[in-house]
Amino acid sequence: MVYEATATAPVNIACIKYWGKRDTKLILPTNSSLSVTLDQDHLRSTTTSRADASFEDGDRLWLNGKEESIKEGGRLWTCIKELRGWRKAEEDKNAELPKLAALNLRIASYNNFPTAAGLASSASGLAALVASLAGLYELPQSPSELSRIARQGSGSACRSLFGGFVAWREGKEADGSDSLAEEVASREHWPEMQALICVVSDAKKGTSSTAGMQHTVETSPLLQERLRVVPKRMDDISAAIKARDFDAFARLTMADSNQFHAVCLDTAPPIFYLNDVSRAIIGLVEELNRAHLAKTGHLLAAYTFDAGPNAVIYAPEANMPTIVAAVNRFFPQAEAFPDPFKVGTAAALPEGFSEGVIRIGGWEKGAVKSLIHTRVGDGPRRLGPEESLLGPDGIPKTLA
Amino acid sequence: MVYEATATAPVNIACIKYWGKRDTKLILPTNSSLSVTLDQDHLRSTTTSRADASFEDGDRLWLNGKEESIKEGGRLWTCIKELRGWRKAEEDKNAELPKLAALNLRIASYNNFPTAAGLASSASGLAALVASLAGLYELPQSPSELSRIARQGSGSACRSLFGGFVAWREGKEADGSDSLAEEVASREHWPEMQALICVVSDAKKGTSSTAGMQHTVETSPLLQERLRVVPKRMDDISAAIKARDFDAFARLTMADSNQFHAVCLDTAPPIFYLNDVSRAIIGLVEELNRAHLAKTGHLLAAYTFDAGPNAVIYAPEANMPTIVAAVNRFFPQAEAFPDPFKVGTAAALPEGFSEGVIRIGGWEKGAVKSLIHTRVGDGPRRLGPEESLLGPDGIPKTLA
Repeated sequence: MVYEATATAPVNIACIKYWGKRDTKLILPTNSSLSVTLDQDHLRSTTTSRADASFEDGDRLWLNGKEESIKEGGRLWTCIKELRGWRKAEEDKNAELPKLAALNLRIASYNNFPTAAGLASSASGLAALVASLAGLYELPQSPSELSRIARQGSGSACRSLFGGFVAWREGKEADGSDSLAEEVASREHWPEMQALICVVSDAKKGTSSTAGMQHTVETSPLLQERLRVVPKRMDDISAAIKARDFDAFARLTMADSNQFHAVCLDTAPPIFYLNDVSRAIIGLVEELNRAHLAKTGHLLAAYTFDAGPNAVIYAPEANMPTIVAAVNRFFPQAEAFPDPFKVGTAAALPEGFSEGVIRIGGWEKGAVKSLIHTRVGDGPRRLGPEESLLGPDGIPKTLA
Repeated sequence: MVYEATATAPVNIACIKYWGKRDTKLILPTNSSLSVTLDQDHLRSTTTSRADASFEDGDRLWLNGKEESIKEGGRLWTCIKELRGWRKAEEDKNAELPKLAALNLRIASYNNFPTAAGLASSASGLAALVASLAGLYELPQSPSELSRIARQGSGSACRSLFGGFVAWREGKEADGSDSLAEEVASREHWPEMQALICVVSDAKKGTSSTAGMQHTVETSPLLQERLRVVPKRMDDISAAIKARDFDAFARLTMADSNQFHAVCLDTAPPIFYLNDVSRAIIGLVEELNRAHLAKTGHLLAAYTFDAGPNAVIYAPEANMPTIVAAVNRFFPQAEAFPDPFKVGTAAALPEGFSEGVIRIGGWEKGAVKSLIHTRVGDGPRRLGPEESLLGPDGIPKTLA
């Protein structure tokens, strides 16, 4: 009997940003946040967890084929310990269960997107780890309860335990028991929501988000006002999602991205994630919106930027041809853009669009390195044993 | 008898930034600000004002040889009207005074630095206008009283009526009578304070400060916190200046520049003035400071950025060789840098300086277009008639 489970988990990109911890050990945030889960058909982390009596060298873990150490007291260690504890509690209640909690683990994880894409692979990766262990251990806990564990692995990972539109409630308890994720709306509620990820090169490695956010907490006077602003934004964007009100969703998403980068700049020393290409993408989306609003009374798109220069542009499916065409026009791609939705790049710019806001003549090829077109997606998926990442010897298949 | 006066006024660069008006007509700011006046030996606006009975076509004004219209109710018109009113009051008190208030004016103004340098020419220009008219009219008002008039021409112009270190007190009165500039310390108090202006190219014209600051007032939630933060910063930087405490001065100056750009970014749509070269200059100064602090316990320099990509780096005279050399090394100049202080570019980087923070290999020539090395300076100067910008016919000499 092989005790094993394989699961995938999605990437999520926040509209209301997480930036700052009130407890760095438990990963308790200074404010609630809200994200859109992206489709695992396009972007996913896959993790296989296996427990076996033959594993005699402790727990071992490979990420993209490279073994990572599981440091005692570290984030991975904490997640594994917590889930194993829950398994043990089940075994104690039901003597018929196999004693998996006592067995060592082998875990293999794989991201289907390059780390260089600058997507938050730690979020999908930790969520896939938690989902696969929850599957292996047949845990009865709900996704929200599991999200508490994922949160301790990587804060925003808790949001990747749900599909659709997901809130991470900051919680009030000192032990973090109420700091967890929950679904605000499913993907089926607003399936037209799509995303275009613009991967932007940057010559210089930015500040890590773990270090950066604590510098902001320690030194930014403006963060205090942000903490007063976010609760209403959470309410407002939840209402916008429930009403499928893209204009309100877009305004809040763009304002919160900009405010997040503003508190980074208000940090001492200042933290910069946006570069000139990021600024130009913002300028492009703002001008697309200005022209579209003048003509239709509605916004076309919403940009958001995490702790890096890459843009994620959210828009309803119907608006994507215009956005894809505009981005391709001003940020020419070295190769044809492989679009699973095949919207093409021929759509016209909106009437009244003023090119003056973008750098004259557009940017050189490579300023935006690549584009990924995806949409709102579902939560973690359990895969069959044929999808296992581990070989019969408990070593990743890619290393066999 | 020719009734005429010629005056020069200096550029000032704020350490605590002015950004936002509570009254756009009277130019009353949402917060107090503080600047360093730069030396008129290097950067200045010169203005000649003449009143003559032969001028029959109303008041006329030329700026850098180009005639500007003086629109009724406009900023120039307001300044001239107010100063003429003060002259009239003097004439009413003293019948022996020539009746200059009844005469039309010819005014010529000239900046000795290119507009493309991105320095706030409106501040020095309006201050020179006020100083020359105050000279022509022989007004008894103090520089602080005159600063109320200059403020209505261009907010930050009020600070150019003083040398040294200058505060613009926001004031409380609705009529703006207490919103004026005053000296915090003279240039003689801290004559070692120098400045290196790094002129940075930008492909795109930024948002005008007049429009930009009102967008911030209307849309930035974070501005509210900034308004709570500034009063203590004003007190702290005044104390730092009085104590000649460069470390405190530098920390406050850099923090306030960053906070000003943060509230610009928190504006909807966001306003960007810093570009990738600006960011790199910040990175360079932060790393120079980190290394210097580790070795000496003191900071080396302070950067500040107005509403554009140009850096102004403040530092004590003794630190300038290191700064000038570092800037020249990472931002090579197309031509040798004409430095009135002749500090040279041979100084070594501080021990422990890590080049990794700057883009590998530095920037191409032209990223920093030019450098201006100057120092703290005095207030407006009255020049002799031989310096007049107007010919005998009342037309600028440059047009004759």
